[in-house]
Amino acid sequence: MTQLSMQAPEGVQDYLPLECHNKIRIERKMAQCFHLSGYEQVDLPTFEYLDVFATGVGSVRAEQMIKFVDSGGHILVLRPDLTVPIARMTSTRMKDQQPPIRLYYVANAFMSRDSSPNEQKEFTQAGVELRGVPGPEGDAEVIALAIEALRSAGLEGFSIDVGQVDFFRGVMEEAGLTGPKADELRGYVDRKNMLAIELFMNENGVSPGLRERIMRLPVLYGGEEVLGAASDLTQNARALSAIDTLREVYEHIAAFGLSKYVTFDLGMLHSSDYYTGLIFRGITDYFGSPILSGGRYDTLTADFGCSREATGFAIGVKRVLIALERQGCMEPLPRIDAVVSAAPEKRGEAYAYANALRSNGSRVAVAWKLDADGLEAYAREVDAQAIYFE
Amino acid sequence: MTQLSMQAPEGVQDYLPLECHNKIRIERKMAQCFHLSGYEQVDLPTFEYLDVFATGVGSVRAEQMIKFVDSGGHILVLRPDLTVPIARMTSTRMKDQQPPIRLYYVANAFMSRDSSPNEQKEFTQAGVELRGVPGPEGDAEVIALAIEALRSAGLEGFSIDVGQVDFFRGVMEEAGLTGPKADELRGYVDRKNMLAIELFMNENGVSPGLRERIMRLPVLYGGEEVLGAASDLTQNARALSAIDTLREVYEHIAAFGLSKYVTFDLGMLHSSDYYTGLIFRGITDYFGSPILSGGRYDTLTADFGCSREATGFAIGVKRVLIALERQGCMEPLPRIDAVVSAAPEKRGEAYAYANALRSNGSRVAVAWKLDADGLEAYAREVDAQAIYFE
Repeated sequence: MTQLSMQAPEGVQDYLPLECHNKIRIERKMAQCFHLSGYEQVDLPTFEYLDVFATGVGSVRAEQMIKFVDSGGHILVLRPDLTVPIARMTSTRMKDQQPPIRLYYVANAFMSRDSSPNEQKEFTQAGVELRGVPGPEGDAEVIALAIEALRSAGLEGFSIDVGQVDFFRGVMEEAGLTGPKADELRGYVDRKNMLAIELFMNENGVSPGLRERIMRLPVLYGGEEVLGAASDLTQNARALSAIDTLREVYEHIAAFGLSKYVTFDLGMLHSSDYYTGLIFRGITDYFGSPILSGGRYDTLTADFGCSREATGFAIGVKRVLIALERQGCMEPLPRIDAVVSAAPEKRGEAYAYANALRSNGSRVAVAWKLDADGLEAYAREVDAQAIYFE
Repeated sequence: MTQLSMQAPEGVQDYLPLECHNKIRIERKMAQCFHLSGYEQVDLPTFEYLDVFATGVGSVRAEQMIKFVDSGGHILVLRPDLTVPIARMTSTRMKDQQPPIRLYYVANAFMSRDSSPNEQKEFTQAGVELRGVPGPEGDAEVIALAIEALRSAGLEGFSIDVGQVDFFRGVMEEAGLTGPKADELRGYVDRKNMLAIELFMNENGVSPGLRERIMRLPVLYGGEEVLGAASDLTQNARALSAIDTLREVYEHIAAFGLSKYVTFDLGMLHSSDYYTGLIFRGITDYFGSPILSGGRYDTLTADFGCSREATGFAIGVKRVLIALERQGCMEPLPRIDAVVSAAPEKRGEAYAYANALRSNGSRVAVAWKLDADGLEAYAREVDAQAIYFE
């Protein structure tokens, strides 16, 4: 016999029936939530040409993409997210469709994880893309939808942290910090690394007044009051306009009765360049990393030749599944209701009866090999009703 | 601006909303059919170690697999089917589970298609795996399930062609043809290439009596009467036992009232070595290639160290979708029932009303940016009801 690999590769997993049942169950609940909110499902290829991702992808760096070469010598990539492929699709095959365009997906994405081997290389995302709705109205629509989707999955005790990349950019403008310097500081602020921020300011001779303000960035975290504190920190027009947007979004969210789910975090900056305004992520006490990530990326579709306002989010399905498991919200596998067998001349009757039960929603397995006694034993084993035709 | 690829790679496709809706619709119908028949859904990694497929895979040859190398130097393969990965999984993580084991999947598989560029490199399969049910009873269970699944998808005018690899193997034994010679002839018989069969027999000096019998193999196609004609063709015990199995399977299928869907084709041989008995495929006038393929592969799980009888099938979802489209069975996209907006102070009321409509199953999109007139115009455009709170 050939020596065969007995295991799935590192960083990917088998979903056995119990876990698969719960995964599909929450995927369908979230999909139904998107569907009822007027979003249409799309599906895209598992791999794309490498240059589709030239503008950068969420938090995935180029070297983390899983690549291969086709017989024509093209470099292909297992998609690291769905947002960029959907930007490609909406900018080409849907470019004549009148906005707003509302799309959703439940699909797998991929990245190699050499730096963090405990994380998954293949992960299912459930997400939406909203095109052609600018401003706070579009932002509020997707944030509310993110909250409803997580609620529909049965998740409790989560929060949506909301930030605005333009606030930081404005403060950097004001500080005269640009390019790699601003990027370096962005990383420290995003990780709330106070020591690194102080060292950075010493090394770069930042003035005392500005120092104090920059040190406050990572702690601009909390309820609506954070927005006032943030306004006091800057006179930069871009930064102040970012705060105005957040205020308007908050008014919508509060009107919807969802303010308890929203926290502001002006030190949150996401690592990708493609965000152009509001950004957000979902966090829960039941999982150590964000379970949801989203924001506005109005310039992304322009890279594909069809400029349209764009916002959206992706939910990490497996992370939500783990959080639900920790909350004790896993459902058991639906039981088999009946097992059916028959004497040879009664098989037709038994088959028709099994199908009649199924059309009423019962789960019925057949066991044609078993006689009445064998069927009884099998039924006891799987805790089902035995139905024998003789 | 960077130059970006505007298109999906060759051989893979974008599913836009209308097609995606119908694809998901038939996937769910087939999944529900499997579920109600007592099968449990599983999901597996998109890629596996190469040596998992060392025993061969359905009709996919090694050079047709899409491969890449991970950072540890392992060769990984985008799965060319689900049957072999599920054999790996059931033989390891489910090896202690009492048979029968009934599993199903709806998942994508991959192959490069350099020789047939018009075919898809990524294709969705909906299929089942039945473990631990030997003999005609297991064969009949999966063939009946294949028929019910295609019916549940709404397909009309299809047939399940049933063959038996042991019949051909027995006839070859009788003819004294083995190894590459038998394989060569198998290919000609499977493709019903009568000219190649005649040339083969001339070149290999096959005796006149055997010649006549071998020439009849490709035309052993039709109803139950084919089984009698096949018995007359051979005295080989293995071949005759194969015919007996087919007879017993037919008795079951006829009792189930499904005989009109079944045709025998003893010249059908599938190209994979892993089949050990009955094989079948689904064909329809509405698509030029098989829409379903399956059979018995009792030795496959032994290669992974856990020997169990195994049978199953996979349905090509896209092929069924095309057949349904040709039958005029595509559903339109479900309409948006209402679009909602509100004056700022009425947003809460409007949001609650939209959610109430959704919980009754209506599709409701919000359009917070629009005033009453704008909403009216938008509603006319999408053929929905306008609901404005002022």
